Parts: sequence; structure tokens; C-alpha cells
Amino acid sequence: MRIVTLTTDFGCADYASGLLVGVIWSIAPEAEIVVLSHDIPRHDVIAGALMLERSLPYFPKDSVHVMVIDPGVGTQRRAIAARLGDQYFVGPDNGLISLSVKRQAGENQPAEVVHLDRPEYWLPDVSYIFHGRDIFSPVAAHLARGVALDSLGSPYADPVLLEVPSPALRKDSISGQVMHVDHFGNLSTNIRGDLIPNSKKSSISAGGLTIAGISKTFADGSQGDVVALIDSSGYLAICEVNGSAAQRLGLRVGAEVEVSWHTDQSTNEGKPA
Amino acid sequence: MRIVTLTTDFGCADYASGLLVGVIWSIAPEAEIVVLSHDIPRHDVIAGALMLERSLPYFPKDSVHVMVIDPGVGTQRRAIAARLGDQYFVGPDNGLISLSVKRQAGENQPAEVVHLDRPEYWLPDVSYIFHGRDIFSPVAAHLARGVALDSLGSPYADPVLLEVPSPALRKDSISGQVMHVDHFGNLSTNIRGDLIPNSKKSSISAGGLTIAGISKTFADGSQGDVVALIDSSGYLAICEVNGSAAQRLGLRVGAEVEVSWHTDQSTNEGKPA
Amino acid sequence: MRIVTLTTDFGCADYASGLLVGVIWSIAPEAEIVVLSHDIPRHDVIAGALMLERSLPYFPKDSVHVMVIDPGVGTQRRAIAARLGDQYFVGPDNGLISLSVKRQAGENQPAEVVHLDRPEYWLPDVSYIFHGRDIFSPVAAHLARGVALDSLGSPYADPVLLEVPSPALRKDSISGQVMHVDHFGNLSTNIRGDLIPNSKKSSISAGGLTIAGISKTFADGSQGDVVALIDSSGYLAICEVNGSAAQRLGLRVGAEVEVSWHTDQSTNEGKPA
Repeated sequence: MRIVTLTTDFGCADYASGLLVGVIWSIAPEAEIVVLSHDIPRHDVIAGALMLERSLPYFPKDSVHVMVIDPGVGTQRRAIAARLGDQYFVGPDNGLISLSVKRQAGENQPAEVVHLDRPEYWLPDVSYIFHGRDIFSPVAAHLARGVALDSLGSPYADPVLLEVPSPALRKDSISGQVMHVDHFGNLSTNIRGDLIPNSKKSSISAGGLTIAGISKTFADGSQGDVVALIDSSGYLAICEVNGSAAQRLGLRVGAEVEVSWHTDQSTNEGKPA
Repeated sequence: MRIVTLTTDFGCADYASGLLVGVIWSIAPEAEIVVLSHDIPRHDVIAGALMLERSLPYFPKDSVHVMVIDPGVGTQRRAIAARLGDQYFVGPDNGLISLSVKRQAGENQPAEVVHLDRPEYWLPDVSYIFHGRDIFSPVAAHLARGVALDSLGSPYADPVLLEVPSPALRKDSISGQVMHVDHFGNLSTNIRGDLIPNSKKSSISAGGLTIAGISKTFADGSQGDVVALIDSSGYLAICEVNGSAAQRLGLRVGAEVEVSWHTDQSTNEGKPA
Repeated sequence: MRIVTLTTDFGCADYASGLLVGVIWSIAPEAEIVVLSHDIPRHDVIAGALMLERSLPYFPKDSVHVMVIDPGVGTQRRAIAARLGDQYFVGPDNGLISLSVKRQAGENQPAEVVHLDRPEYWLPDVSYIFHGRDIFSPVAAHLARGVALDSLGSPYADPVLLEVPSPALRKDSISGQVMHVDHFGNLSTNIRGDLIPNSKKSSISAGGLTIAGISKTFADGSQGDVVALIDSSGYLAICEVNGSAAQRLGLRVGAEVEVSWHTDQSTNEGKPA
């Protein structure tokens, strides 16, 4: 079985998403297709990049991930496919693979990218404004059928990689950013939990609020408390128990978050604000 | 084929739902997965319980229903799996199975419940805040692969069963509650249609309005009429023709609904309000 | 493989949509099921008709399309199934097939329609208000299993066909209407691109705005520009670059759009308003 996942900013109400499925099954009837989301904020490439990076660890080998968040469709932007570890990406060359490529590089498994320049793997008629249907879906279907990545296009050494904010590490603090706000208003940051030396003795500051210590779970707080957690992707997150931290603190993607701690316990009497 | 259904309160925009699918297919590639809803109101266990009970009659034998409506994740609340007739439930022990267990008991087929205490059937790393991905999905996948329920955990005699309001039956009336408001604003109650002895001679009162008689279908009224029906699950429902009864009457889940009738026809000249 | 697609106006939050899946898989376990949309505007038969017509070219042979946009459920309106080219429709007889039948006729492949009057292909108990679950889903499942169309009902010569607005062609202009507003606010019309003789020399008027020429893609304009395009279904569309033309121009389905051109180039100095 080869899985094909779909992630778009089309919304759920439109028939566009169904066409991707029709095209894929016309070419690869044995593919299993699953929608990750059709509700990525419009043209939000970073949100798509984050979804791809956080999804890859949970999907089986040879899964093919199609992402149609494509503000540049019909322009000179390229169409690409990429091998990311043991799985595949198909979509526009606009930075959607940025976080995944970075993670791959960190694990010494550089991504392999091809420029989709072989029309024999596309639909016969390619519109100027719907490459999701006309190029990405057919290419994903061919991958799912077992066509080799390097048959689908020419090697491509310079895919667009967005500058994604990294946390700044100092002796006794880390500054990072909110990267994602989920359906519940939880704020997930770019600060990996394993960068924080002592979770009990840390203070977390965001939106004018200081939180003492990192909780294991929501249940460590009471209804309405704002707590800091290591979220299910391994990153520091700020959450309101049974509420929306995003709304409570007025924060969104890009907001600053600081974690600080005292290495010398004897002088640990104040809290950084 | 084993079907796995997913019901959550994650919303459609989040990648969390896709991870459940990735995990299930990593373990049980042959599973067929279908989303019932990702839009259950946040933490609304009763809404989930209702969905489960009303879905069971329409799914094939051996279907596995995963429900992640889990405000207590990471607390002492248990994780469970249950056999409900010829199908299975996997999720938190917070009452999601209440209505189904009650129905099973009524049919003399008591549910069989296990406490999920065997980590060998989970993902290797279990987060404190996403048991949907780390425990429920892998357990559901093992069920779908044919692992026996009693291999997945220890017998568990006292699952949480919520007090769900039951209608009060009197000699010539029934009082019940609105249990569900659907997408169209139709109000479905906990009054089974077969409890009402004479649908033509009944009066239905809700939100200050009295409706004479129970219609077969919307077409018995005109645009804007409020009618009472037996809905497609067999329960009394109050609906506005081509409109929203919830909005029209200002009613929501929990609102009182009364059905009354006259056993003595000769004195049937007024309508109860 | 037989594909079954589902299109409804149920919304994503309701369990009704899942029941269709349960019923189909109970009868045809080998069916592949995909949701086109559960967010068709309530009772909007024209929107459903458009989705059907624009989807058919992209789905494989023998796909079965179930549409439950059914304001007349429980009335005298008939239930039908139809062969449209090499694919099938199942749903209420209220005009959902109008555009597809018209296209088929244009290609000299008249649709074949049957009146669903054989209860042996339905669920045993048929509610008055949910034929999607009780009639359309089981019939679709039987089609997916290979039951012949003419076994499912009696030949039916006069299905409801809605009067769908057609563009008015004149010597040097075409008047048409907005047929669909997508998630991004793009306005798709009923004017096929191939009816416009010279896309560079044409002027497009809508909502008080005149656009000079038809662009190939969004990138021909700058952020905020309103451009005219031939959309991915081959129809003239009006779009705001990175914005919503629907909101910008205050237009919705039914709004007038005019395309005009000058056959004599020498006098082409003004723009029609």
C-alpha cells in the first residue's frame, strides 16, 4: 500500500479537493488517500511546512504527501517532488519542505529533490491556475504506483528554503517564537523541550505573563490557569486549561516566548518578568 | 475488512487528525479509515456518546470506533476499549460509551470493557497530552488487525457511565429533553417515537410553542412552519421547515420538551400549552 | 475498484455523513469512499449540479456519485439513479443532474435515468426524512457491487431538469452570469473560454468594474488587482490577486458578467463600460 495525503488551503466547501482524489485514483486505483487538512490558512506556506514536518514521523514508509498551498501557481515558480527520509513530498517549490529538509540534514539524510519537468507524468491539459489537479496529483499517483522519483524530473539542487525563525540560546535563557496556534488556542513554539535544562526551575514569559515551571499535563492546573507544557510534538507550548491561550494572551504566530532559569540555586529568589 | 472510524473535537484545520490516520495505517495497513466528525464541540462528551450510539446500528460487524474527546488526557482518567455488540470502542474512560452501554444492557448484551494497561500495544513514546495518537490509535489498529479485546488490557467492571437524562413517562404525557441540535437547527430529543401512543392526537410543547400532532415529514408543513417529526434515529424532533428550529425557538441541548395527549377523545377540545 | 463519492449539505459536524459510509460499507465492503463536500450551501441544488458536472471529467469509469441535497425528502419527489457517460449518479430527482445531462446530450450520449422503485435494494426500514441513508447509500453500494442500473428501478424519461442560465451570444459580446463563488472569493461564470474570440482584445465588465483583457494567471496582476482568467474548468472567472473578488465587487451567484470586443481594430480606442 502507498498512502497519499492531501493538504490544501481550499476549504472544505469546494469541489476542488475532490478532483485531486479523482485524478489520483484514475492513475493509481490502489492508492489509499487521506486528507490531512483543507483548512490551512490561505497561502500560509509556513503552516504547511510545519504540518509536513510534524506529520512525517507518524506515516508509513513510502507515503506520498501532496501539498497545494500555492500562491505562485502559473508563475515561474517550479513544481517539485522530494524524498524526505523514507517518504515523499509533491507540490510547489515555495518552501513547504523547509522544516523537513532542515530536520533531514540534521540527521545526515539530505533530501533528494527533483524539478517536475516531464509532462508525460501530468494530465494532458495543464491549466495555468490548478497545478494541484493537473501536475501534483498525477505525479503523486505515479509515485504511489512505484515510479522512481528521478524518473519524474531532473535533479534540482536549490529548492526554495524559507528562513524559519530558530530559538536563540543563551547561558540561562532561550528566546523563541510561537509557530502554530491549534484549534483549541494552544500556542506551540519553536523551542524544543530538550533544550530546557530544568523544567521545574524554569520561568516562561509570553504576552506579559510569567509562568513558573513546566507542567506535565493540563491537569496540573485548574480551569482557566495558563500553563506551559511540552506538547505532543516535543515543543514548548503555552495553554489555558479548558480555554484558549491565544485569546487570553492576545498572541499569534510569531509572538515572542522566553524561557529562563537560574543556574545558581542559592540566589534563586526572584522571577524574571 | 475492518473499519476504523474517527470522531474528535480537533477541528478540520489541524494536523492532529491526520496523525491518527498515519499511526493506524503504520500498524494496520489494510484498515479502512473514515472520519465521522472532527467538529464535535470541544470536550462535549455527551455529544460524542450520542454519535456513538446512533452510529453503531449502521456500521458493519467488527468496526472499531475511536473517539478522542478527552478533556482529562494526562490525568488519572483511564484509557479503555470496549465491545459494544459486534463492534468496538477505543477512547478515554469518561462516559463516551454511556448511551451505547445502556442500549446494550437493554438488549441483554452487556458491554465488555478493558482497561488499556498493556503498553506493548501503544506507541513507544507516550506524550502526556495526546493519547489519541499514542494510545487509542495504535490500540484501534491492533483491534483492526485482529488482536483480541482481552489481550489489550485487563477486565474493567466500572467504566464511567454518565447520568444521561431519561424522559419522564406519565399517564397522558412525556417530558423529555433536547439531546442534539443538528447542522440545520433541528432539535432531536430523548423521547423515542414508539413511546407516543397516538401521534395524530398529541400536542408537543417546547420553547413556548405548542405543535398539534406529529408530521411524517417536512412536506406536511409550509416554509417557516415548526413541525414535530420522528427523526431518522427514531426520536421525536422539532424542526422548522426550511429553517432552524433552534434559532426560531431559542432552544439548545437540555431544553425541555413535553408531549401530551388525551386518552378520552370526547373531551379533547383544548390544547395543553 | 468502484469509487463512491459523497456530496451533501450536512455540514462537517454532524454524524449523518458517517452513517452514509457505514451503510455503503455494510453492503459493499470493497468500495472506496471519498467525500467531495459536506458543505454545499443548504438546499442549493444548482451548486450541487455544478459540482457534479465539473467533477465527472476527473473520476474513473464506473465511479458512483451520491448527492444528498434534498429539500423535498419525504414528499412526492422521486429518487433516481442515472448513467452519465461512464459514471453514475444517485440522489433525489430535483435537478442535480441538470448540467451533466445537458453536457451528455451535447456529446450525443444521452443520460439513462431510472426511478428507484425497487425496495429490495434499500435498507429494510426507510425513514421519511433521511433517504440519503436509507435509499441513496444502499443503491449506490449495490451499483458499486456491480448491480446493473436497470435492475435498480424502472426507466424514467422525464427527470427534473432545471433551467440553468446560459450565456447570451451576440456579434461582439457575450452576457453571462456568475455560477460559483469558491473558497477564495473567485467568481466563476457560465461563459466558456472558447466562446471568446480574442482574449487580449476583450473587455470584461462586472460589478461596475471593467477589466481589459484576459490574463493567463494571477501572476499577470499585482496584489489587489482584479483580473479575468479562464479558470481550471474552462470558464471565464473574475479573481482578485491574493484577495476576494466576491467581496471586492460585492457580487454573488447570479450576478451579470459581460465580455465585449471590437472586431474592427482601427476603431478600438474606448472601452465599453
